[in-house]
Amino acid sequence: MTLSFRELNNTKTEDLEITDERPTTLTGAKRQGQNLTLDTDLYELTMSVGYSLLGRGARMACFDVYYRQNPDNGGFCVFAGLESAIEYINNLAISTEDIEYLSGIGVFSREALESLKSGIRFTGDIWAVPEGTIVFPNEPLIRITGPISQAQILETTLLALVGHQTLIATKAARLCIAAKGAPVIDFGTRRAHGTQAAFYGARAAYIGGCAGTSNVKAGKVFGIPVKGTHAHSWVESFENEIDSFRGFSEVFPNNCVLLVDTYDTIQGVRNAIQVGRELKLRGKQLVGIRIDSGDLAYYSKTAREMLNEAGFSNTKILASSDLDEWLIESLQQQGARIDTWCVGTRLMTSYQTPALGIVYKLMAVDHGEGVMVPRIKISHNPNKITNPGVKKIFRFYNGGNRMIGDLIAQIDEPIPHSKSVKAHHPMYDYMKKVYKPPFEAAELMIPVFLKGEQVYDCPSPANIRNRVFQQLGELEPELKRFSNPHIYKVSLSEKLYRVKKNLLSFYQNKAKSENKSR
Amino acid sequence: MTLSFRELNNTKTEDLEITDERPTTLTGAKRQGQNLTLDTDLYELTMSVGYSLLGRGARMACFDVYYRQNPDNGGFCVFAGLESAIEYINNLAISTEDIEYLSGIGVFSREALESLKSGIRFTGDIWAVPEGTIVFPNEPLIRITGPISQAQILETTLLALVGHQTLIATKAARLCIAAKGAPVIDFGTRRAHGTQAAFYGARAAYIGGCAGTSNVKAGKVFGIPVKGTHAHSWVESFENEIDSFRGFSEVFPNNCVLLVDTYDTIQGVRNAIQVGRELKLRGKQLVGIRIDSGDLAYYSKTAREMLNEAGFSNTKILASSDLDEWLIESLQQQGARIDTWCVGTRLMTSYQTPALGIVYKLMAVDHGEGVMVPRIKISHNPNKITNPGVKKIFRFYNGGNRMIGDLIAQIDEPIPHSKSVKAHHPMYDYMKKVYKPPFEAAELMIPVFLKGEQVYDCPSPANIRNRVFQQLGELEPELKRFSNPHIYKVSLSEKLYRVKKNLLSFYQNKAKSENKSR
Repeated sequence: MTLSFRELNNTKTEDLEITDERPTTLTGAKRQGQNLTLDTDLYELTMSVGYSLLGRGARMACFDVYYRQNPDNGGFCVFAGLESAIEYINNLAISTEDIEYLSGIGVFSREALESLKSGIRFTGDIWAVPEGTIVFPNEPLIRITGPISQAQILETTLLALVGHQTLIATKAARLCIAAKGAPVIDFGTRRAHGTQAAFYGARAAYIGGCAGTSNVKAGKVFGIPVKGTHAHSWVESFENEIDSFRGFSEVFPNNCVLLVDTYDTIQGVRNAIQVGRELKLRGKQLVGIRIDSGDLAYYSKTAREMLNEAGFSNTKILASSDLDEWLIESLQQQGARIDTWCVGTRLMTSYQTPALGIVYKLMAVDHGEGVMVPRIKISHNPNKITNPGVKKIFRFYNGGNRMIGDLIAQIDEPIPHSKSVKAHHPMYDYMKKVYKPPFEAAELMIPVFLKGEQVYDCPSPANIRNRVFQQLGELEPELKRFSNPHIYKVSLSEKLYRVKKNLLSFYQNKAKSENKSR
Repeated sequence: MTLSFRELNNTKTEDLEITDERPTTLTGAKRQGQNLTLDTDLYELTMSVGYSLLGRGARMACFDVYYRQNPDNGGFCVFAGLESAIEYINNLAISTEDIEYLSGIGVFSREALESLKSGIRFTGDIWAVPEGTIVFPNEPLIRITGPISQAQILETTLLALVGHQTLIATKAARLCIAAKGAPVIDFGTRRAHGTQAAFYGARAAYIGGCAGTSNVKAGKVFGIPVKGTHAHSWVESFENEIDSFRGFSEVFPNNCVLLVDTYDTIQGVRNAIQVGRELKLRGKQLVGIRIDSGDLAYYSKTAREMLNEAGFSNTKILASSDLDEWLIESLQQQGARIDTWCVGTRLMTSYQTPALGIVYKLMAVDHGEGVMVPRIKISHNPNKITNPGVKKIFRFYNGGNRMIGDLIAQIDEPIPHSKSVKAHHPMYDYMKKVYKPPFEAAELMIPVFLKGEQVYDCPSPANIRNRVFQQLGELEPELKRFSNPHIYKVSLSEKLYRVKKNLLSFYQNKAKSENKSR
């Protein structure tokens, strides 16, 4: 039995048993991962050591991971990368060789190196929204609470892992929305930022809704359906296109998809039909053709007619060639007859927005009195002012099972039900909203590490992908528009809003008095 | 002794001994790398097996790696990623576990799997331009010659490695050009597409001219100077900014760079000066301050004045905050007093052009008669038509030691000297050029693998970086402009141009006759 998203999120930790059949080749989050401890900015190590040497390293701190703006000016993100983050934290360790290297860079004292040697581990708590959750700007996606010298160190690596994978999962979801149910395949390995970006990118793309990937390792490790046709070079290596098609059909009679545009697309379709007839005589069929250049609307319509006339109405038409969500949408509007969309560059690099503005901000810290004091980062840019304190997220649904808004609340606030709830815009006093019953509310964040121990078992990519489909169904269509989508409301609870306002005035007054004292 | 670029390129393989002192922690190209064999598109395996099963696998083929357009509409690229490519090829291998996985995906027959088991290796030749070479669209960067079933397989992984690293090295070079000699530091690890992209990205950024990186692992493995300050969270974790600065100066008295914009930048500079005075009393100095928000021109100028007035004229000003080459150029024009540019997102993702249109194209193949026949890929887009055959590149220099043009020639053409050389535009008949003596010419490609054996010893990143500096000095300033730069001429030799024209007419006539026969 698979729990629905909302059932899952209202379940206690100890009940978090997700039934999840997966082949043995699939990796769970507890598999032995890579040690990424040094895959970080130097300043994380510097600060961690600094806290410790000043006797502050054990003070509890709370950091939030969140992003500020949806990529592609879109309406949402698909959260991904949690499994990688878990793997990273489980494998935190610093070797003697690492310490030796660090001793040579002229930054760390002997005392500092000693502190590093013993300080690289995580004994705190981490809560996060599950992978595959639809999320929005400025709400906490991961909340890290622990001794500050430990919690600080996680920043850079967590951001690199989660930022990248969220970006690709989001792009994949957008592509699938554009494709309106037709399969989208990740063909982007060659354009990814190296092989690891391709590997985790393929996983993220699958989570986001892609039907498969060309990446063989991702197929093997994550159980993603792996797909492929052949390249122009296959055709060019033969003296004639038709010979190359015949050759391919001979070796792969059950998976024969032919690339028809090496020389002349129409002639390529004719040759494919000829080989399709020969396959029929052998009791096999021409599975598909792929068009990789030219006007995909014109060529797909023409090819469809030619295939149908020749009795190949079951032969699929695959298209590739710098596709993105806007082009797919536009090709569909123009009646393109494309059955499968093969997307590379624009998916695997999130071409139009290749970085997510994801950050790791201090939200509360113990100043030595055993109390977590909310902290705020002030900025000239109001959108960059943080929402202070240790927080959680409630998501509201209307009777139609659609998401209607998220509320960031303080950690001790109870889940709202049957009473009206005031919701404040994060910055503007005059912008308020009231959620009136009947509504349903769910808490989004679940425990992942408690006292340094992993308490969450990562679902399989296939299960995460199902959750994305389910959640996209709960999202208003206006939020899925590619141009100028509706803005989903992420508000602050009354309690949290008061804390934020008080902190802001406190620092304003403090700055004034400091300026006066000069 | 380090050979100059041109000396290097006119040297025979066996003499390619680059004196290159490197710390033992640095990795040479022959270090045990990762096995990336399955980090590829399925279709590479499919085609490789297909060639073999049709009895064509051993036929020699020649593939070129090249790109079609400079990123950011720039004037050049800095080639990078060859060391990774070499490591990949040296570690090609398929495991029993891999074969087991592949047997389950429903594509490969038992015979096909047998062929894969024995076929994954490379016994051919690879020539390439050395890392750090300034390169241009449409010229071969890597030339792979070998049995087609082996050579085909390298495509996807080579492109992912070389495309990514070339992109980042190029961006770094552009940033350094904008910074006019001031150091540029890579701070982009958190925005990279995962940790491996950050690691190889840091190497590429350093090669391209960056003075250092924040990435600790890249510092350790590649010997890149590793740099860092502290984050806003350091300041926020203390009750007062000045206490946080004091704390940092106490723990890192010799590396004290203070981030001044957590609350109020001007007040932050005042606090930094105060802590600088306290450091002076202890015989130490305030190394720098960093500004991460606001108008960097205004704040850097104001901070410079404040620091100078207070006797801290040696204290450096570092700046970060969504920097790119255009912003750096503009800030410099407005008199910003920034000593060090810390660049993250825009460098590490090559933000404005996050993918290089790099391709792997079949250039010649043996059809079974023991002769390499030039092949051409025809396209409706003239820029996508390939330059056929096995080729090499000559680079011409004028008396002022400036690059004046590249000539793609057939493999057997001798290096030009003391005679006029005709150069053809790759597509347009009427566009010709003659290189008249006196000129110097150098051959760009060097052997990397011969008969499957690595014959090239990769220089250290520091040596490659020096080569980039040297080559950028040989490049006309008009090619380094960010907006609408001059276009460097990459031409075809007369012999090659004739082959291309003949092949084009051959296929046109063939297409005509095929259309007629319907």
